[in-house]
Amino acid sequence: MSYSENSKTALKETQSNPAKNLSLSSAEKIKALRRKSKDINQIANGILNGNKADLSQAITLIESQSKRHAEDIKTLISACLPYSNASLRIGITGVPGVGKSTLIEKLGLLLVDKGHRVAVLAVDPSSSITKGSILGDKTRMEKLVQHPKAYIRPTASGESLGGVARKTRESILLCEAAGFDIILVETVGVGQSETAVHSMTDFFLLLKLSGAGDELQGIKRGIIEMADAIIINKADGENIKAAKKAKVEFNRALHMYPPKTNGWIPKVKLASALNNNGIDKVWEMLSSYFSKVKQTGYFEEKRASQNKFWLTHTIEDALKRSFYQNETIKIEFPKVLEQLQNQNISPFEAAEYLLKKAKD
Amino acid sequence: MSYSENSKTALKETQSNPAKNLSLSSAEKIKALRRKSKDINQIANGILNGNKADLSQAITLIESQSKRHAEDIKTLISACLPYSNASLRIGITGVPGVGKSTLIEKLGLLLVDKGHRVAVLAVDPSSSITKGSILGDKTRMEKLVQHPKAYIRPTASGESLGGVARKTRESILLCEAAGFDIILVETVGVGQSETAVHSMTDFFLLLKLSGAGDELQGIKRGIIEMADAIIINKADGENIKAAKKAKVEFNRALHMYPPKTNGWIPKVKLASALNNNGIDKVWEMLSSYFSKVKQTGYFEEKRASQNKFWLTHTIEDALKRSFYQNETIKIEFPKVLEQLQNQNISPFEAAEYLLKKAKD
Repeated sequence: MSYSENSKTALKETQSNPAKNLSLSSAEKIKALRRKSKDINQIANGILNGNKADLSQAITLIESQSKRHAEDIKTLISACLPYSNASLRIGITGVPGVGKSTLIEKLGLLLVDKGHRVAVLAVDPSSSITKGSILGDKTRMEKLVQHPKAYIRPTASGESLGGVARKTRESILLCEAAGFDIILVETVGVGQSETAVHSMTDFFLLLKLSGAGDELQGIKRGIIEMADAIIINKADGENIKAAKKAKVEFNRALHMYPPKTNGWIPKVKLASALNNNGIDKVWEMLSSYFSKVKQTGYFEEKRASQNKFWLTHTIEDALKRSFYQNETIKIEFPKVLEQLQNQNISPFEAAEYLLKKAKD
Repeated sequence: MSYSENSKTALKETQSNPAKNLSLSSAEKIKALRRKSKDINQIANGILNGNKADLSQAITLIESQSKRHAEDIKTLISACLPYSNASLRIGITGVPGVGKSTLIEKLGLLLVDKGHRVAVLAVDPSSSITKGSILGDKTRMEKLVQHPKAYIRPTASGESLGGVARKTRESILLCEAAGFDIILVETVGVGQSETAVHSMTDFFLLLKLSGAGDELQGIKRGIIEMADAIIINKADGENIKAAKKAKVEFNRALHMYPPKTNGWIPKVKLASALNNNGIDKVWEMLSSYFSKVKQTGYFEEKRASQNKFWLTHTIEDALKRSFYQNETIKIEFPKVLEQLQNQNISPFEAAEYLLKKAKD
């Protein structure tokens, strides 16, 4: 399969916003609009033809926080949406040092060998702490990054989780429109990034290490329940015995937990990404999961519920932001909180008071 | 310790709302206000003197959904708030049939014997399904219900979780003001009741049964991570062996999970509530937990964060309700959702569209 086979030409006429250029003369306006439209249409067409440079430029637009790109981004998303959704989205998490990059490179190489196109994205809402630690060093995926069927994009970062999540999710759509049929989304494992990635992928992989008695170091509560599979990495050399023991224990632990809504029981696998051991088994498991959930309809169901989740999440986030950023609330909230903690008011009465204040 | 030792007399003058009786003559208004004030002040005084009949009447007021009681409830809560907060709040959950009522009765009797005053409340946001199954049959706590130092209140139910949570939380405050120093809050284990009870108690007990291979039947994902302790009940007779095995397995499973923020590692205990076995050990564990967290300050910290949780939860709930009940949104939301599921629009753009519509 080549890029040209993936090309789509039915790019809709894009809508421009004439109100944007009011300070220019009519002739200039028309010219500006044409130029802009052409540029953004070119990029969109490039994406649909699988052009990685256009894809990168588009993701850069999405990552820009500038309002003047809002219309362009809408145009891009509208053009790409009809061609998105046809991929397997796999979330990958684990604490730093667990070997995420190595595993992603090995899994990615296996997949491109099988004819897939693989895009690797990353979510890192707290870049200040971890800057550069996630995908920053592309040399850690030296072979994959050079492969024509792979696309690796360093992290969208540096602001709120909601913002990063949106950017990542929109980047996924663009990658899919560009013909990438497997999307690996790495999370740095801090903040709420796992929850976000879990809510935008079809399968959630947790990487762990065995041994040293601190299997849980850095893992947050709730993450294990999100995992569809746990991969115990670095199961090689002296680690093998401890890894096998950890596998038994995790299997037992997972068995004590209620099954997932789709009936899937999370699997525990051993791997040594460094030695390229066990990666094929990981893919076997993923394939078998996907063929199962596609058959039962759960795959589509989950995508639909994720769409609805991001719709309501975005709405509710905006409602909250607008409430807490209200000038009166900014002044009143700390006062009310103090009254609450001094037991002068109940939380419910305090809430009623603030809600009334916001309306006044 | 007798009720009179617990009496509090410093009941503040209650504020009445004169705007409420505009249709009456001035003389009638004053009379009505006096009568109402006197009644509600009497009830509040009764509560502060540990009178169970007054407590029941007050909780009935809280449970009423009638708007005309809103002022009375505010008066009650204001009067009781300064005397609340001085109890241990223990949440208890488990599927029907696990023996919650029996365990609560035995634990309650142990506690009143030790000189404590024990109040038992219940949360059941889905009364339509489970009506009558929770505390409905007071005869299941025959001895405790008759004890002068115990107070058992059947469930607040029949509406939204938010409403039930508020009522339960306000009832807790009143019970505390009435001198009950241990509050047991039972949840029926359906809907989101566990999350609510977990967010209003200091310690969360999960009751389970062993054996029959279906330890997990009816338990929802996430509940086990909430538990501060798991009690395997009905560990008697033929069940003992299976119960001991379950204890080992749960301990192992819990060990695979990250520790709680306060460093507490959830305990697993065996009990036979029916035979009154192991209940003393449960109380020993609770005591040791409470003395530890009171020493470290975590007890107060958690209470403060729960207060803030209910404040923001109530605010955000109201914001959402007002958005989704907006007449335009009621019409537009299903349309937009369809567009979303047909991939004609991204969730983020859909959200922006609806947020704009709500403002128009």
